[in-house]
Amino acid sequence: MGYIGYRIGLSTKAALRQTGRQVGSLSRSYATTSRAIIYSQYGEPVDMVRPYEHQIESEPKDNQVLLRLLAAPINPADINQIQGVYPRRPAFTTKLGTSEPTVAAGNEGVFEVVKTGSKVTNCKPGDWALPGVSDFGTWRTWAIAESADLNPITEHSNLTPVQAAMVSVNPTTAFQMLREFVDLKPGDWFIQNGANSAVGRAAIQIGRMRGLRSINVVRDRPDFDAMKEELTSLGADHVITEEQAASREFQSTIDSWTQKAPIQLALNCVGGKSATSISRKLAFGGHLVTYGAMSKKPLTMGNGQFIFQNIHAHGYWLSEWARQHPEDKKKLERDILKLISEGKFKTGPVTTNKWTDGQTEEEFGETFKKAMQASLDGSGKQVMVYE
Amino acid sequence: MGYIGYRIGLSTKAALRQTGRQVGSLSRSYATTSRAIIYSQYGEPVDMVRPYEHQIESEPKDNQVLLRLLAAPINPADINQIQGVYPRRPAFTTKLGTSEPTVAAGNEGVFEVVKTGSKVTNCKPGDWALPGVSDFGTWRTWAIAESADLNPITEHSNLTPVQAAMVSVNPTTAFQMLREFVDLKPGDWFIQNGANSAVGRAAIQIGRMRGLRSINVVRDRPDFDAMKEELTSLGADHVITEEQAASREFQSTIDSWTQKAPIQLALNCVGGKSATSISRKLAFGGHLVTYGAMSKKPLTMGNGQFIFQNIHAHGYWLSEWARQHPEDKKKLERDILKLISEGKFKTGPVTTNKWTDGQTEEEFGETFKKAMQASLDGSGKQVMVYE
Repeated sequence: MGYIGYRIGLSTKAALRQTGRQVGSLSRSYATTSRAIIYSQYGEPVDMVRPYEHQIESEPKDNQVLLRLLAAPINPADINQIQGVYPRRPAFTTKLGTSEPTVAAGNEGVFEVVKTGSKVTNCKPGDWALPGVSDFGTWRTWAIAESADLNPITEHSNLTPVQAAMVSVNPTTAFQMLREFVDLKPGDWFIQNGANSAVGRAAIQIGRMRGLRSINVVRDRPDFDAMKEELTSLGADHVITEEQAASREFQSTIDSWTQKAPIQLALNCVGGKSATSISRKLAFGGHLVTYGAMSKKPLTMGNGQFIFQNIHAHGYWLSEWARQHPEDKKKLERDILKLISEGKFKTGPVTTNKWTDGQTEEEFGETFKKAMQASLDGSGKQVMVYE
Repeated sequence: MGYIGYRIGLSTKAALRQTGRQVGSLSRSYATTSRAIIYSQYGEPVDMVRPYEHQIESEPKDNQVLLRLLAAPINPADINQIQGVYPRRPAFTTKLGTSEPTVAAGNEGVFEVVKTGSKVTNCKPGDWALPGVSDFGTWRTWAIAESADLNPITEHSNLTPVQAAMVSVNPTTAFQMLREFVDLKPGDWFIQNGANSAVGRAAIQIGRMRGLRSINVVRDRPDFDAMKEELTSLGADHVITEEQAASREFQSTIDSWTQKAPIQLALNCVGGKSATSISRKLAFGGHLVTYGAMSKKPLTMGNGQFIFQNIHAHGYWLSEWARQHPEDKKKLERDILKLISEGKFKTGPVTTNKWTDGQTEEEFGETFKKAMQASLDGSGKQVMVYE
């Protein structure tokens, strides 16, 4: 399936390239077949999502852009949204042609610009594009979008689709958290838990670029030494276990590393005891920033930590910042992609899951559900790739 | 005992007034008998403190000031300090003449200036004086202090000693918390627990003066209606119980009061579930400020409150602010005393405990310990008054 404007036996990629050059009235009457992962009510994610094949207009009008998916990851926030436990709810509509109101799921990914409407100025066929708004619906093979809702990536020759697909949420979150709460200077320390998460890895690398030093907490694990080596290779100064982070005795080791320099920032994506542990490492006046809750445990802190240690606890929600500063968000994504293309920033390990036009609609759906289940099982980051 | 420069049968007060006028070489050789509540190690407060009678120089030199106690309250922080659980520890010395290092306890109170050294310019006999530094040792009947360590109150004709003795800690804390975290405008709402505490009552009144509106949480109690009436008379807009604050159903009542105007500030002196309750009333981006922990329970908040509601949790420790801004603190105390003298601010209910020169040293100690025990038992605010 895929782009069917040219039913002349071209592979989709070839058709895509050709389409990229041929914009005009000739193809006005054609439609494009798109497949999407949609849902119509909240609940257990694997039960709620279903594949949906539909035709979309292949000729973008005015400010519209015809997009073809390159790659889209499955993030925890996407899953929480389908579970109905995410505070931002997408709009259910019938605009995809469903009989009941539905929404195309997925919030992150990268598309290729296939055609542009006559009034589009910010991108051209062949460019890549990231969603520039929330709830874009990235788990679909083709889409018509408003050009204003996109962040076009004009220069992508040194990037892979998977790299570009994963820049919007995690590296940007890390980048923002390292600058929004404390004015850290080169040589300053921060501490984080879940340090091997996508945000954690990004924070290590961004911190290192800025000359910051980091103490990185990961779960106790059999392959701790390998993990330590991996994170150290990204720029982590120290990698420790949750057990070490919770130990009062271990504080002297940390003191020897930092020479008792104040740790003013702690990044928390775990919650529970792990959050308490890293908050105790903070100096007077330090800031604890929560951006995740992998342990699903609430955050507990002694009153004295607030009153006498003057600790400040905050949360960070990138979506809200992006809503308020859409252009800053777009620029940040482009900046980070530039770092990636220059080899200065590494994206984390992923498992790719292929969508192809050779799959039936059912196979398309099953491929996705298998990836989603792997994501729910904690089997690492899953990315859908459309070839 | 007391000031014994004039052993001529004058009452202490008369002697004090006379001394206030006679400064010079005539009395240079006299000494003053002072009694203090001292301790030399941390532990159970009633067991640790003891009375101590000693002579002090009655002729202040250079920048010194001879002070006579008027009144001093017993605050939770004083008790915590003796327990050794307060983060700021006073300096144990032998300067009072004890054989082992000790410290005079008490951090808040008001003295009368009896005599001033030749270089003192900031106060004169007859003025009152508040401690201008931490760990002053207010639980003593007479003292020699550096004039720079005092906050002189020149105009006190409309003030009682008890009013002046209690301005340094609680009203100042309330005043600062209402201005340091959120730029509240007239008509804005705040919420607080422990609303019948000294800080709570101060926040109600200071808030009202600024045109703020308050929702005040107090413990469920048999005399709730009387408490509600009392706090309302101070300016509380609404007074509710902990049970109501914790109830999800009660939210609609609060919404009807506020017309869903955002509550941006919550003041917490309880901790535990009470803190969680009031934090849930906060609007997006709101601030929870902890200044006490009456429940002795840690503060627990959902990760989502931080991430998605953008709640900020802080603590407030007046001592630290005072250490950094000693002159601001002094001015704030004078401003609040002016409000009190104008009848615009009411200090809360207290129990007074009298120290007199007619008491033996042992009676002096027992009077204090009885008051301290009442304070530990939760029998309301205890104030020592020296007559």
